[in-house]
Amino acid sequence: MTPDSPMPSTDRPLLVALGDRSYLIHIADGPVSGPPSHAAFWSALFAECGTVGDLAVVTNDTLAPRYGEALCRLFTKLGYRVVPIVVPDGERFKNAEMLDTIHDAMLEARLDRTATVVALGGGVVGDVAGFAAATYQRGVRFIQVPTTLLAQVDSSVGGKTGINHPLGKNMIGAFHQPRGVVVDLSTLDTLPAREYAAGLAEVIKYGASLDATFFTWLEDAMPRLLMRDRGALTHAIRRSCELKAEIVGSDERESGRRALLNFGHTFGHAIEGASGYGSWLHGEAVAVGMVMAAALSAKLGLVEQSVCRRLVALLATAGLPVEPPRLSVEEWRRWMSTDKKAERGRLRFVLIDGLGSSRVSQVDDADLDAVLSARPESSLVDQAVVV
Amino acid sequence: MTPDSPMPSTDRPLLVALGDRSYLIHIADGPVSGPPSHAAFWSALFAECGTVGDLAVVTNDTLAPRYGEALCRLFTKLGYRVVPIVVPDGERFKNAEMLDTIHDAMLEARLDRTATVVALGGGVVGDVAGFAAATYQRGVRFIQVPTTLLAQVDSSVGGKTGINHPLGKNMIGAFHQPRGVVVDLSTLDTLPAREYAAGLAEVIKYGASLDATFFTWLEDAMPRLLMRDRGALTHAIRRSCELKAEIVGSDERESGRRALLNFGHTFGHAIEGASGYGSWLHGEAVAVGMVMAAALSAKLGLVEQSVCRRLVALLATAGLPVEPPRLSVEEWRRWMSTDKKAERGRLRFVLIDGLGSSRVSQVDDADLDAVLSARPESSLVDQAVVV
Repeated sequence: MTPDSPMPSTDRPLLVALGDRSYLIHIADGPVSGPPSHAAFWSALFAECGTVGDLAVVTNDTLAPRYGEALCRLFTKLGYRVVPIVVPDGERFKNAEMLDTIHDAMLEARLDRTATVVALGGGVVGDVAGFAAATYQRGVRFIQVPTTLLAQVDSSVGGKTGINHPLGKNMIGAFHQPRGVVVDLSTLDTLPAREYAAGLAEVIKYGASLDATFFTWLEDAMPRLLMRDRGALTHAIRRSCELKAEIVGSDERESGRRALLNFGHTFGHAIEGASGYGSWLHGEAVAVGMVMAAALSAKLGLVEQSVCRRLVALLATAGLPVEPPRLSVEEWRRWMSTDKKAERGRLRFVLIDGLGSSRVSQVDDADLDAVLSARPESSLVDQAVVV
Repeated sequence: MTPDSPMPSTDRPLLVALGDRSYLIHIADGPVSGPPSHAAFWSALFAECGTVGDLAVVTNDTLAPRYGEALCRLFTKLGYRVVPIVVPDGERFKNAEMLDTIHDAMLEARLDRTATVVALGGGVVGDVAGFAAATYQRGVRFIQVPTTLLAQVDSSVGGKTGINHPLGKNMIGAFHQPRGVVVDLSTLDTLPAREYAAGLAEVIKYGASLDATFFTWLEDAMPRLLMRDRGALTHAIRRSCELKAEIVGSDERESGRRALLNFGHTFGHAIEGASGYGSWLHGEAVAVGMVMAAALSAKLGLVEQSVCRRLVALLATAGLPVEPPRLSVEEWRRWMSTDKKAERGRLRFVLIDGLGSSRVSQVDDADLDAVLSARPESSLVDQAVVV
């Protein structure tokens, strides 16, 4: 590890500075997997989050027996009225129906505006429960307890909430900042390898597009990260959240710099959309999207081939796909055209102009088409490496 | 009219001061009913509202042929791509289905985040289209063009948006401030008398709970207001918006003072809920709710009988109901318990403690039950007058 990124202790929470919507991210070991011995932690957390009313604990049917029930028992013991709300597990359920399920349960339990929604789960639970909190009686408090690596480094920072629509991913949603975030590293022990790798894709994204030092650290630390080493994980999560928090703090509503966080996402969203959501994990689609965005950047002469080579190598080491699916140029364009960064029909891409440095730019159709139509698809990786 | 409430000219817009979410309310004569001669007005308005992208013009099937089509033609002529979205007319359609209709049309037209939603209609169109704007791609611009008196004096100020749920009115929604509001007085000429009176209920509310001078002016001006005199209307609308804007500016998210705007609404919402929404107009329910809240205030010794008498008389002169429907105490309590002002199961009421002066307070069950169980219901009015 380089001197300018010292290993933090897990007991120092990370501030997301957003004025009167600021909040803390706590990175800890055990509060979710072993709640009975963390009563003081949760008690302090609820106080810090201004939790005065009842708790709606939203989780999925995989996590409810694993963590949810014990947490609800502890929260009840701490004196809260707890309304458990269990939704199905999976990206394909991230829709209006899941939102209704949560709202219905909150209304049936007669929760008032003092209620707090606790989202225990991955990105799906966090996004939908967060949107439910944003829109319940015009907004109630919300605490994120992300249990996947992807949710810990991405969706738990920044306040983006929402649901998918048949015509596009995350098309309906709101900005709603949580009052606090609890990252329990021990929840990653049971995360399937494929989902864990998908989270690493976003971690790599932060390094590749925003912080060369962090990228270099990741190249060195990847074997330890793959073994889910607590120390390496703590730094990887903390530095990812720091990088995102710094950008979100300067551009909460994504009018400018925040778009930089979407490196790889314009292509990635198209992959997810074209495959009908769910066959590709978000992080897998972003991994391929980053390779495509890097190839596009190289084609435009913004970045050297060595950077593309290092990105492809690091993604592959992390166990991520690097070759795009077989789609026609028309299919790519159709699925990219609903990208939320688009303005007046013009697509905008996050391009890297050096390791750890990025910019948002429109791209000429010919350059884009060259990347979209690379055949065989594997040539794109070669192109990213060889250009 | 008293010297401290001079008649404003219609060309001076009213500022709703909310920091970087501030906006102007334009009170004018003709831009909606006769758009071709108001091209310059609309052009300036769109510039003021930062409207750079496409327009989604949401209106209902009554207003589309009356105003919507001509407005869309003008907006097209001004160079905008216009997506007209027509929804059914009526409070019973203010639900998730109408929200979906608007979102689906916006997505099918591939509107991006630079789009602006123009809500042309009464409170239903304004609330649902505003909520659609709040949640489309996590929030797009929104312009209110209220065409009912109720919407002009109430829902066009303050940024409350939302839909009804089978378990409660406005239970799902968001705070989302418009970029601008256009009040065209001439749209009131075709408003049915019953809807017009319902709007006057909210006007009277501002006077009774916040501004004794305005209340006294209303007693004097009511005959002219009933004739829809432009001068009297301009002052009534402007003063109502000013009073609301001043409170909203000091408490945008309704954590404190904003609750004062709900005088008569706790009882009123229960009347609307118990009757299934739609058989009572919102303003009619609020009128009766104010009589009940005034009677409760008198019962607690907060206000003199003469104030209650003047309130009942002014409401009756405006053509509004003043007697509550026949509900059991249990029914009242059930419908009031989902009131968004409730905290931890305790109802809070807006009470008047003088003409033009109000406070939020919890109330003892015995005092509340005395008002809820007044039999015959007409005795409540007598009680309000006689206590």
